[in-house]
Amino acid sequence: MARLRVHNLAMSLDGFVAGPEQTRADPLGVRGEELHEWIFAEDRAPIVDELIKRGQDGIGATIMGRNMFGPIRGPWGEETWTGWWGPNPPYHHPVFVLTHHPHPPITMEGGTTFHFVDNGIDAALARAADAAGGLDVRLGGGASTVRQYLRAGLVDELNVDVVPILLGSGERVFEDGITGFECVESATAGQVTHLRLVPSVRPS
Amino acid sequence: MARLRVHNLAMSLDGFVAGPEQTRADPLGVRGEELHEWIFAEDRAPIVDELIKRGQDGIGATIMGRNMFGPIRGPWGEETWTGWWGPNPPYHHPVFVLTHHPHPPITMEGGTTFHFVDNGIDAALARAADAAGGLDVRLGGGASTVRQYLRAGLVDELNVDVVPILLGSGERVFEDGITGFECVESATAGQVTHLRLVPSVRPS
Repeated sequence: MARLRVHNLAMSLDGFVAGPEQTRADPLGVRGEELHEWIFAEDRAPIVDELIKRGQDGIGATIMGRNMFGPIRGPWGEETWTGWWGPNPPYHHPVFVLTHHPHPPITMEGGTTFHFVDNGIDAALARAADAAGGLDVRLGGGASTVRQYLRAGLVDELNVDVVPILLGSGERVFEDGITGFECVESATAGQVTHLRLVPSVRPS
Repeated sequence: MARLRVHNLAMSLDGFVAGPEQTRADPLGVRGEELHEWIFAEDRAPIVDELIKRGQDGIGATIMGRNMFGPIRGPWGEETWTGWWGPNPPYHHPVFVLTHHPHPPITMEGGTTFHFVDNGIDAALARAADAAGGLDVRLGGGASTVRQYLRAGLVDELNVDVVPILLGSGERVFEDGITGFECVESATAGQVTHLRLVPSVRPS
């Protein structure tokens, strides 16, 4: 059975995975990009390469929320939005986008196809697991997508990077009483702490 | 001028410094004690000794909220509550307890006197700074006391210990738009990450 894994979920010390006021120009919200500077640093620590590699290894499909896919809300417009990542997105496998509004699949270069799932997170996971062909499924963002899967007890591995900045407001993943994980690995590089959590009580 | 310092503020990964349902039997709330296991571990890391020592060095007075002092809410009852710490509390200097209800000072063994301040956080800081006699003032808990001083821009140093557990609910320090700190030290021992933050823009 495919495992559902979250990787490189960058979170501020005050618990935000995106800043406030997300827009097309500022998809991570005000100051949200500060959450990811450690990934793009020229002198990034070797552990960061390792963590990024882990997030790609053994992954056969990705699930993401519509807000991670693009800035369009409500019904899809006339313009065909094909994601933030250009003609050859860095997935190279099927990507399942959660939406309330049906949309035909979009085939991109390099093996990425965006499929749009309008019947819920369980259906998306079932389709992604099937498409992954025996590999695992990676769960992307945004915050509400991760929160929904956590709350449903469907996440098998959760890799969080705690960035010691205070954003003051934005979107949280950990609220609504999410518990049931334990930390099995912890490492700090630069000022960022990388944590790997797994369910402390496995769902039956 | 005395600096106001917070030390060993243990916080869960989901941002809680105390669990829900605080009672006299469970002053840190449900599962709140898990936030402090790393302090009481027999095999605790040397850095923990260092951090505890830092929190005592150069401190001449302490401020705490009434909920940290005791479980009594509203007017003081007939029973004289003298704190959680027995006849010889581990402060050995003046302690200023924030309350809305006047109470005469309580002199304990070992140099600790509890003073009760009913006219606000600024008055408490002024009295504590004066009593500290040239040393710094340590700000204890609980969450709402720390939050009030942070929001007022009165905290000069904030030492947070991130414990990678999920409590699900409880009391947060970081909410209501608190920002303006930057991390200047970071270290992980065991699974706990110790962060030292200072104001990124000093109040003028």
